Amino acid sequence: MEDERVTAVYYQGEGSFTIGDCAVQSPEAGEVRLDVAYCGICGTDLHIAHGAMDKRVKTPQVIGHEMSGVVAELGTGVDGFRVGEPVVVRPLDTRGETPADRGFSHISAGLKFIGIDAPGAFQRSWTVPAFTLHHLPDGVDLRLAALVEPLAVACHDVRRAELAAGETAVVIGAGPIGLLVALVARGAGARVVVSEVNQARLQFAKELGFETIDPIAVDAAECVAELTDGTRAEVVFEVSGAPAAALSMTQMASVRGRIVVVAIYPEAQPVRLFDLFWKELQLRGARVYEPADYARAIELVAAGTLPLERLISRVEPLERLPSVFEELAKGTSDIKIIVDCRA
Amino acid sequence: MEDERVTAVYYQGEGSFTIGDCAVQSPEAGEVRLDVAYCGICGTDLHIAHGAMDKRVKTPQVIGHEMSGVVAELGTGVDGFRVGEPVVVRPLDTRGETPADRGFSHISAGLKFIGIDAPGAFQRSWTVPAFTLHHLPDGVDLRLAALVEPLAVACHDVRRAELAAGETAVVIGAGPIGLLVALVARGAGARVVVSEVNQARLQFAKELGFETIDPIAVDAAECVAELTDGTRAEVVFEVSGAPAAALSMTQMASVRGRIVVVAIYPEAQPVRLFDLFWKELQLRGARVYEPADYARAIELVAAGTLPLERLISRVEPLERLPSVFEELAKGTSDIKIIVDCRA
Repeated sequence: MEDERVTAVYYQGEGSFTIGDCAVQSPEAGEVRLDVAYCGICGTDLHIAHGAMDKRVKTPQVIGHEMSGVVAELGTGVDGFRVGEPVVVRPLDTRGETPADRGFSHISAGLKFIGIDAPGAFQRSWTVPAFTLHHLPDGVDLRLAALVEPLAVACHDVRRAELAAGETAVVIGAGPIGLLVALVARGAGARVVVSEVNQARLQFAKELGFETIDPIAVDAAECVAELTDGTRAEVVFEVSGAPAAALSMTQMASVRGRIVVVAIYPEAQPVRLFDLFWKELQLRGARVYEPADYARAIELVAAGTLPLERLISRVEPLERLPSVFEELAKGTSDIKIIVDCRA
Repeated sequence: MEDERVTAVYYQGEGSFTIGDCAVQSPEAGEVRLDVAYCGICGTDLHIAHGAMDKRVKTPQVIGHEMSGVVAELGTGVDGFRVGEPVVVRPLDTRGETPADRGFSHISAGLKFIGIDAPGAFQRSWTVPAFTLHHLPDGVDLRLAALVEPLAVACHDVRRAELAAGETAVVIGAGPIGLLVALVARGAGARVVVSEVNQARLQFAKELGFETIDPIAVDAAECVAELTDGTRAEVVFEVSGAPAAALSMTQMASVRGRIVVVAIYPEAQPVRLFDLFWKELQLRGARVYEPADYARAIELVAAGTLPLERLISRVEPLERLPSVFEELAKGTSDIKIIVDCRA
């Protein structure tokens, strides 16, 4: 086993990937080696592929963090897992936590994101700390289980919103995370309205059964007001990262509405603080997930109640990953691409 | 009684006030006539005096809403109050509330603020709807009771923050509301740090026993980090309305910190939404007060535990109010001026 080598895809910096192989890494104490089954391509992976995170990502490095797999080998001292069982990894290395983090491990200042700050899952064999693992139910579809990570993001966002059944939620931005937020919010009993500037994505949101707004064609905030008889939305999810959305999100919200900011804005953005004051809004940041969100996401995948299958645009073999990143850089209409790391 | 006339101060528009008199107005059904005792001058009154709210304020009009008084006459159908008892008015006419307001009467879209949108308390005799009244304990100091209204604002802000004993709270801006927020927060068991650019106000905050930051002299966010061993503040109150504060408030907050925006920003302001996301902050708007905040403010005035007396810079007779507004327009070092409406 020690000398076995398996396929891995390496990020080389400046937007370039290569196919290679790596030695299978036996787990040390407290670690588990996994046979990776599937790994989805995340927006953050694309960001890395654009060269935008070269200061943070050491090269050459295997990236990827939206995975499912099977336990292959246990390090010493690892209890509660058995070889052959299906698992997913919650890719947060929280061992740098300090008292200044006030117990919020998942967003601790010293957090390392596995797959960005440490080797990721775009390889056949992956060794990770055991504390990052979540059990999957036997018989789960491992392809769908590769959606647990982004689905956990959505579960976290919806939980941060304290969304209640019967409330209206507007989701701004219908990329993969926006659509997952919309699906989880609808599953929680909310009326969900999706706002999206891209016509193909808008059409796809419609096909998933959501009410939609094209904010290029109409005044989105006025549209939300009309749809709700003037109440506007109790909850707004800002998932687009567009400056126009940062400006209009407070106008879409009802009195005492909650706005969850999921998108990443590198620069300070103009926000209508007057709306925040006047309507006593709450603006809540939401980043990654906590263990409870992973548990909920796994439940949702296992229950099969959400049309997750429809979000998977295609499944590609690991060897094609460098080419897929090149295609994505040119622009495609994919929602979610899953990489088969066994193929 | 019908023909009796009493002193009143009228806002005439364009920043001008006149002394006049008005007929004592007998209360209609559901109304109560009060003998006004004291009425404080609020920042909003100053805003009106600067001519900045001429579109909203009908003229000639009596303004003023930070009052205390005594019940003088009851309209038909008013129960629970007796002539001669001390009261304060919660100056919110919520009768325009609709279902779209989701039960949040105090910030309902059709809210009328009594003293801005309807006649106020800078007069000897004032008639108001009975539902706006709160009982005061017998023997309360009516001069201090004129602080109930701004103190209720502070109680509301602290309640919106869900401030817990032992937490660190930064108050940005040490005007009357900022100082009251600081006092209420300290009373709730928080460690309170006050940030203020005006040297006289900074000195006054120090004299009240607060730790202080001069954000002109030091990097306020770094200073908060140092004071808290890197944790930063669990709660930030933005009471200054300064664009620099809107930018730095997110940097002062701890992971999962709550930032209460009390200040009024007429224009959209750049806000570091990245901090909101990264630290999962909450930004909460806070406007006016709810009945529970009035109840708490009255308790605090009656208990005598806060040094409210020290916030009263001077007490002026009603006849001097036009001159006082002229002085204030030129700039004074007053914290809170109370007008004696009986003098």
